[in-house]
Amino acid sequence: MEYRIAVIPGDGIGPEIVTEAKKVLDRVGQVFGHTFHYTEVDMGGVSIDKYGVPLTKEALETAKNSDSVLLGAVGGHVGNSRWYDVAPELRPEAGLLAIRKGLNLFANIRPACLYDGLEDACPLKREIIGDGFDMVIVRELTGGLYFGERHTEEVNGVMQATDTLVYNETEIRRVAVKAFETAMKRKKKVTSVDKANVLDSSRLWRKVVAEVAADYPEVALENMLVDNCAMQLVMDPGQFDVILTENMFGDILSDEASMITGSIGMLSSASLNEGKFGLYEPSHGSAPDIAGKGIANPIATILSAAMMLRFSFDLDKEAEAVENAVKKVLAGGYRTADIMAEGMKQTGTKEMGDLICSQI
Amino acid sequence: MEYRIAVIPGDGIGPEIVTEAKKVLDRVGQVFGHTFHYTEVDMGGVSIDKYGVPLTKEALETAKNSDSVLLGAVGGHVGNSRWYDVAPELRPEAGLLAIRKGLNLFANIRPACLYDGLEDACPLKREIIGDGFDMVIVRELTGGLYFGERHTEEVNGVMQATDTLVYNETEIRRVAVKAFETAMKRKKKVTSVDKANVLDSSRLWRKVVAEVAADYPEVALENMLVDNCAMQLVMDPGQFDVILTENMFGDILSDEASMITGSIGMLSSASLNEGKFGLYEPSHGSAPDIAGKGIANPIATILSAAMMLRFSFDLDKEAEAVENAVKKVLAGGYRTADIMAEGMKQTGTKEMGDLICSQI
Ligand SMILES: CC(C)[C@H](C(=O)O)[C@@H](O)C(=O)O
Ligand SMILES: CC(C)[C@H](C(=O)O)[C@@H](O)C(=O)O
Repeated sequence: MEYRIAVIPGDGIGPEIVTEAKKVLDRVGQVFGHTFHYTEVDMGGVSIDKYGVPLTKEALETAKNSDSVLLGAVGGHVGNSRWYDVAPELRPEAGLLAIRKGLNLFANIRPACLYDGLEDACPLKREIIGDGFDMVIVRELTGGLYFGERHTEEVNGVMQATDTLVYNETEIRRVAVKAFETAMKRKKKVTSVDKANVLDSSRLWRKVVAEVAADYPEVALENMLVDNCAMQLVMDPGQFDVILTENMFGDILSDEASMITGSIGMLSSASLNEGKFGLYEPSHGSAPDIAGKGIANPIATILSAAMMLRFSFDLDKEAEAVENAVKKVLAGGYRTADIMAEGMKQTGTKEMGDLICSQI
Repeated sequence: MEYRIAVIPGDGIGPEIVTEAKKVLDRVGQVFGHTFHYTEVDMGGVSIDKYGVPLTKEALETAKNSDSVLLGAVGGHVGNSRWYDVAPELRPEAGLLAIRKGLNLFANIRPACLYDGLEDACPLKREIIGDGFDMVIVRELTGGLYFGERHTEEVNGVMQATDTLVYNETEIRRVAVKAFETAMKRKKKVTSVDKANVLDSSRLWRKVVAEVAADYPEVALENMLVDNCAMQLVMDPGQFDVILTENMFGDILSDEASMITGSIGMLSSASLNEGKFGLYEPSHGSAPDIAGKGIANPIATILSAAMMLRFSFDLDKEAEAVENAVKKVLAGGYRTADIMAEGMKQTGTKEMGDLICSQI
């Protein structure tokens, strides 16, 4: 088969890791008889430099007209920079928000699991890890505080800023369905996270999720408050199967969850719309501090490409081949710098990509 | 001196732990020649049962007319209960929100540190803990999503819920000042946490915090995005001195931070307004599962009473006497169930209170 993939290398380490993921896809094509056509799309800082905006209409159209999108990373250093001096729509991250909305990618699927052999990198104690953990976070991605009306104004001589958190039943229902469908293929447990003791949007969330749950009698639904969830992730991550939550809570909790795995360089993600279309990207950021050094871990991007094969193209066998190749290379003792441990063989970005190809 | 304290036992383990804190205050009074007058105030579930509302006007007035407030805990089980069936203003937690707003307690100060001898309870690995950690979270408590306009309505036949996140310069400035003042007495570092790459309110936050920082040239200011902070707390908690953040982010991050200490039963908190007035309460909740069993850890409430002595009454010596007594009892090997470890002597709520009194 032939597949058209829009490729967004982006900023920082993005181009390096995307190169390896394409290499792996091409190897899959060779072995299984598929052809992947890539169209490169600019987004983020690189697009600002060329066109003055983080995502042009043409770039969005190109992405729309492809079968799926592979993304490296966008954005730069977020330390002490004076955010408030740069118009929001002109920052690299605005490209990410625009493509999510523009392609209607309302469900962000982020697996967070402890990889065999990487327990050393996990910051949690052995007794907390227990039998390990393996969860998926399903984060709503096109609603909530991220896309509500916002403005800054002067009120009686005092500056005042407003952001709006809005959710309607339809938005909640469609992402809840994705979470329950995901749980059906896993341990059949959904933990829906909200702040229903404070927010109206959370109370509507809880109501609609309960309605969706009624269609999945085999799946156990648990409701959890977001502050409690932030605690439970650290105290007992093994209790979770699928976590379902809104956009901002999902941003915070998925980063916390990826960190307790100790292997953020390994975690893939998919952002899906109703159909088969999806955008696939590593869970980590653009890591400007190590960009261009050839030491970034390409595995998260390679595993995101595997997610693409499975979700968007229904190529399960091919996806498994990639995942198994990653496992074999890790079992062989090869590690990039971020997951390096005593007695292992340290490899660079390109070498890691080559090793994974050689196992397919 | 004489001090009038409004005491809110509240729900769950609240009454048990407050009893021990009063016992300790009375012991302090005896030794140092002060008299503490207590007026009991109903709030939370207990007030709903008696008066149909979680906080009556009279209760708020009583609190207002005292020198400070000591609170146990309010609220009940938050698992699968059908929140959305109960009017928000009729839930126990609404009492907490009403008293925060009613007393203008805009700065919530929550210390999170690793206690000597309790390292075993910390879920993080030794190498992550490093030299230990000792931070204070300063959370804005009367603004943001908690108190913005909210409503649920039908739009084109679809239910839609809206919450509003509003901050003005004045609200940001006064809590920022508290954070910088706190940092001046500590390691002189403030990490201000926001989501400035998305929210207008966060951009205003960043701008105003930078202005306040200019008045404290000795204090280092760092800006951090909330998702990154959720990661850094787990990966390298030792980097933090004072974390300053808005209401909802503070709710999530302070719970995460308290959990990585492994000793949430030990963590006190103060909610302050401009002056000396404050409300003092443990960082943990009402723990309905162990209520009435006499096994709850009263130390967080006792240390909250010590914070009251220091902040509201300027009784530094007396506060230290309480803190030292707690340290001595722990050094003596006494532990409540939540922090119990091998070779230690398990004690109940009342016994722990008595032991601490005996060391003052
Ligand atoms: C870059 C930023 C806008 C983005 C988000 O907050 O969604 C990122 O943190 C993420 O999680 O993909
Ligand atoms: C009970 C709830 C409303 C409250 C909050 O969210 O502020 C609690 O979680 C807290 O942190 O004190």
